Amino acid sequence: MNQQLILHEDPRSGNCYKVKLTAALLGLCVERRRYDILEGETRTPEFLGTVNANGRIPVLQAGDRFLPESNAACFYLADGSPLIPADRFERADMLRWMFFEQYNHEPNVATLRFWIAFVGEDRLTEAQRLQIPAKRAAGEAALELMDRHLEGRRFFVGDRLSLADIALYAYTHVAEDGGFDLSVHPAVQGWMEAVRSEPGYIPMKD
Amino acid sequence: MNQQLILHEDPRSGNCYKVKLTAALLGLCVERRRYDILEGETRTPEFLGTVNANGRIPVLQAGDRFLPESNAACFYLADGSPLIPADRFERADMLRWMFFEQYNHEPNVATLRFWIAFVGEDRLTEAQRLQIPAKRAAGEAALELMDRHLEGRRFFVGDRLSLADIALYAYTHVAEDGGFDLSVHPAVQGWMEAVRSEPGYIPMKD
Repeated sequence: MNQQLILHEDPRSGNCYKVKLTAALLGLCVERRRYDILEGETRTPEFLGTVNANGRIPVLQAGDRFLPESNAACFYLADGSPLIPADRFERADMLRWMFFEQYNHEPNVATLRFWIAFVGEDRLTEAQRLQIPAKRAAGEAALELMDRHLEGRRFFVGDRLSLADIALYAYTHVAEDGGFDLSVHPAVQGWMEAVRSEPGYIPMKD
Repeated sequence: MNQQLILHEDPRSGNCYKVKLTAALLGLCVERRRYDILEGETRTPEFLGTVNANGRIPVLQAGDRFLPESNAACFYLADGSPLIPADRFERADMLRWMFFEQYNHEPNVATLRFWIAFVGEDRLTEAQRLQIPAKRAAGEAALELMDRHLEGRRFFVGDRLSLADIALYAYTHVAEDGGFDLSVHPAVQGWMEAVRSEPGYIPMKD
């Protein structure tokens, strides 16, 4: 990587942590620019015009180009490294879990964490409050699916850590902030321990 | 591809169409197995046990291995082809739009199409009905973001068709089924025409 890398982030975001963890495991140096999403700092005209028209973080800046979407940023950093399987099917299977994460896991497990631990239940709209039971059930189902997949496996794809593990670890390991009980998912717990024991691992609060 | 490919699908699903369109553009032969999602055919013990524990289609079967998640299946088929950019940043940028599609576009544009055109508004739950305004606004915002990005561009990434276009085309071109007005997005309309003019293009109802 022969260009300067800058991560536009909010340190409380698991999506931002994915990018930092990927960089740490690869030994890459990434500068950080901090924004407070609760203060609307990613919705300013300057942010929308320059960094991401979608008003979201993380955004990985590589030289003068901007790359939104956490999992795409991880792929950019890890492209050509052992964090992406060399086998064609396994490479697609890694992406399968990353799309599962963004569709089935993040909108439930991460959103409930955000609503409960950061916004506060008493500040939710009526429409949000009514979604809690469905998001709770969908989040539990995602964790249960992960647990069954991980029975007898150390990592999600093949026999080594890939971006699939990084993407799913980010919000799973803080799922209890959103009221999810991880003690009922022993295979998930063993897998989280395996992720934490990888050389170069950094915790979220870093 | 030296193994048999089978697509487990519901022909009304735009997610399934992505995989069929990718295969058609690549000239690959994919056998099809049909399921009716409205009749619960992807929630049977046999489907959950063999094809996809997540109870969703499409699933691409390659030999005896099963690959859920439409965008991952497209990546598997297109790996090494011109539908995936050779440039590292562009490759990640293609994935950026595919993750955007699954996070910002599909849960709004496709879900409203499903609720309105297939389930029927009078059969929605109260929690679903209350989500319509937010999903309408988020879907409009996704289409507006696409429209601004496509101004002066023929395709989403670089100067040729990639999986980003296929992923976003699938539900955009039928967005009007969900009550979205595409006439206010001229750049999106021009881009849809460019997708349709690609050699090998097949329509959704094929």
